[in-house]
Amino acid sequence: MTAEEQQQATPPAEEAAAAESGEQVITPWDVQGGADGKVDYNKLIEQFGVSSLTQDLVQRIERLTGRPAHPFLKRGIIFAHRDLHEILDCYERGEHFYLYTGRGPSSEALHLGHLVPIMFTQWLQEVFDVPLVIQLTDDEKTLWRGLEQAEARRLARENCKDIIACGFDVNKTFIFSDFEYVGGAFYRHIIDIQRCVSMNQVRGIFGLTQDDNIGKIGFPAVQAAPSFPGVFPHIFGDRKDVRCLIPCAIDQDPYFRMTRDVAPRLGYQKPALIEARFFPALQGESGKMSASDPNSAVFVNDSARQIKDKINKYAFSGGGATLEEHRSRGANLDIDVPWKYLNFFMEDDAKLAAIGREYGAGRMLTGEVKAELIALLTDIVGRHQQARTQVTEDIVDAFMAVRPMHSALKR
Amino acid sequence: MTAEEQQQATPPAEEAAAAESGEQVITPWDVQGGADGKVDYNKLIEQFGVSSLTQDLVQRIERLTGRPAHPFLKRGIIFAHRDLHEILDCYERGEHFYLYTGRGPSSEALHLGHLVPIMFTQWLQEVFDVPLVIQLTDDEKTLWRGLEQAEARRLARENCKDIIACGFDVNKTFIFSDFEYVGGAFYRHIIDIQRCVSMNQVRGIFGLTQDDNIGKIGFPAVQAAPSFPGVFPHIFGDRKDVRCLIPCAIDQDPYFRMTRDVAPRLGYQKPALIEARFFPALQGESGKMSASDPNSAVFVNDSARQIKDKINKYAFSGGGATLEEHRSRGANLDIDVPWKYLNFFMEDDAKLAAIGREYGAGRMLTGEVKAELIALLTDIVGRHQQARTQVTEDIVDAFMAVRPMHSALKR
Repeated sequence: MTAEEQQQATPPAEEAAAAESGEQVITPWDVQGGADGKVDYNKLIEQFGVSSLTQDLVQRIERLTGRPAHPFLKRGIIFAHRDLHEILDCYERGEHFYLYTGRGPSSEALHLGHLVPIMFTQWLQEVFDVPLVIQLTDDEKTLWRGLEQAEARRLARENCKDIIACGFDVNKTFIFSDFEYVGGAFYRHIIDIQRCVSMNQVRGIFGLTQDDNIGKIGFPAVQAAPSFPGVFPHIFGDRKDVRCLIPCAIDQDPYFRMTRDVAPRLGYQKPALIEARFFPALQGESGKMSASDPNSAVFVNDSARQIKDKINKYAFSGGGATLEEHRSRGANLDIDVPWKYLNFFMEDDAKLAAIGREYGAGRMLTGEVKAELIALLTDIVGRHQQARTQVTEDIVDAFMAVRPMHSALKR
Repeated sequence: MTAEEQQQATPPAEEAAAAESGEQVITPWDVQGGADGKVDYNKLIEQFGVSSLTQDLVQRIERLTGRPAHPFLKRGIIFAHRDLHEILDCYERGEHFYLYTGRGPSSEALHLGHLVPIMFTQWLQEVFDVPLVIQLTDDEKTLWRGLEQAEARRLARENCKDIIACGFDVNKTFIFSDFEYVGGAFYRHIIDIQRCVSMNQVRGIFGLTQDDNIGKIGFPAVQAAPSFPGVFPHIFGDRKDVRCLIPCAIDQDPYFRMTRDVAPRLGYQKPALIEARFFPALQGESGKMSASDPNSAVFVNDSARQIKDKINKYAFSGGGATLEEHRSRGANLDIDVPWKYLNFFMEDDAKLAAIGREYGAGRMLTGEVKAELIALLTDIVGRHQQARTQVTEDIVDAFMAVRPMHSALKR
């Protein structure tokens, strides 16, 4: 049994027991922090068997690409990986790799948390100049959320527009919906993956049970398949040697633990991963952002007014209860949501550090920090909305077309 | 719980116990007779909850089509059905229905047992003049038999030639391989079906367990989907009202029991079924025809010499042990394989009855009956081989093309 297999073997009964005892439970469908409601990322690294993304790796990315590291990398938001050094070795040798990420289209509009892996992926594509495939799992949403297919497909297309608005290169980016694109080489890979995975294994990895529908039980192979270049003959021809790097939030790791286990049996190399922390809800890390609770998150279609109101009303503050207390003790940055949001989205490192220093010392007030955040998010969301109006149906079709992509592997 | 659901609820542990105690076990992958090695079809009708195909239904088919009934119908080889009368009602009202059958491509050449449902389906298409879809489950063979995909796809195409050689109408027949055709509307139906079926249910219906791979667990939906016209928009457009009739051997009934349960939840009518007995192995009903044992069956690519040798050497005889005993007691037709084969394939009712009478009375010898069978099978197989040489790759492509089939619903 490999270390990866051991990770897979935790049975769901143990997970349930863990949840009751206040231990954290992280699956692709459920994120529960520990007894204090917070996610212990160091513990997660150990539980999942992933590697910590160290600063020397970040520096190596800067050296290889000649570009400053993305803020998510510098600030430990992207905090874990699997085999990232092998991808960098590839790149250094002039070999090809590609990026794979995805989105489950469960809501009309994305919120800021959804943007994190998308923005980071866009940056990776830009600095490494590599092909990217983006999976829209409308089938998953039909299986898990009970969405009717027509609705899931509509949301996939709407979400696609938000994704395109983040600035991907149409010559190197293929966006696909499972309901539209599964078939041919994709279906053949799904079956080959399913052949390698037993019900016992998906029970161990995902906690699926005998009461779950058989679509859910088979679905992990659908998310696994795009990790292999053979799924995309219009991009990679019959090459099996192109490596894949998957930027994702840490809760998606179980899918790719399974995928990595299967890869050698199908004659493929294991996909590498680069993994992000969770973006906190406005109510704090123990809260849950949810499309069904508009006050839990800032959405990309929120107006300036809504952003201002949400941040002022709902963003959990680590500041003192009174002005006096705040001035004397300072803000608790560990639990302060505006501060965490700034860490994600403020590009100016010096300004961010200054805010942290002043706010932590009590010299800056919560209201002032929130005002900074409101200005920043209003700008980011406004620019996103502007970009999205430019995304016509034709542009969506262009990104989603199954087409030869001769330039995708050129750099 | 409906009667159908009750049928589904037999857990696999009970099936295993039944097998040990000498009771018959019939699944799509396993056919074991009872203590005497024989299949009790009356018991099967009760176990499965299907209806007996009575002679008044056969006469109604003759009346409606103006054609004499196929020998399989007259001789009780096609012996059971579900909702066949509703299909005949449709036909009488001038409404549309279509036929769906399939083949799991596990061997290079078909044997006579494989030909039974294919020949009967060809007859149904001819007399009712209706569209037909034929599924080649190359994915199933990859999941269950461990065939490599390339081999399963090659066998699907070879088997397709044998099927076409049976005389289907290219204007009304669509033949597809799952590996090629799954996707789009087909995949969307698979997911909708999978959403309605739990692991517990496939455990109950098919005896699948936690040790089975997740491809097997999801596969029943792949075989179920073609029962719904929405899977074939190039044939039926967006019509959901076209009924489906499935000619198959009785061991496939579990798939369609599940399908019928799901149908109303997807807004479809239940597929109707018309079901055949098993074609016996040369060694007798308790033997098993197997592609891996060439002496267990007559294959469509056997030479005249091979047919003669197999029948003479291996076809189990119900004749007396000695000439004297045979003359005095006659042949036991119940266990005589040449007699059973003649029942399947000899078209001349009067001649067949005469052989049965003479052989049963001991006036005709096993050698003479075998000679009749050898002549008959040599002719059938020879004509099949002749027809197959006419099936070019272009003709295969024509049957397998995803194409508008405007004339399919005209009659």
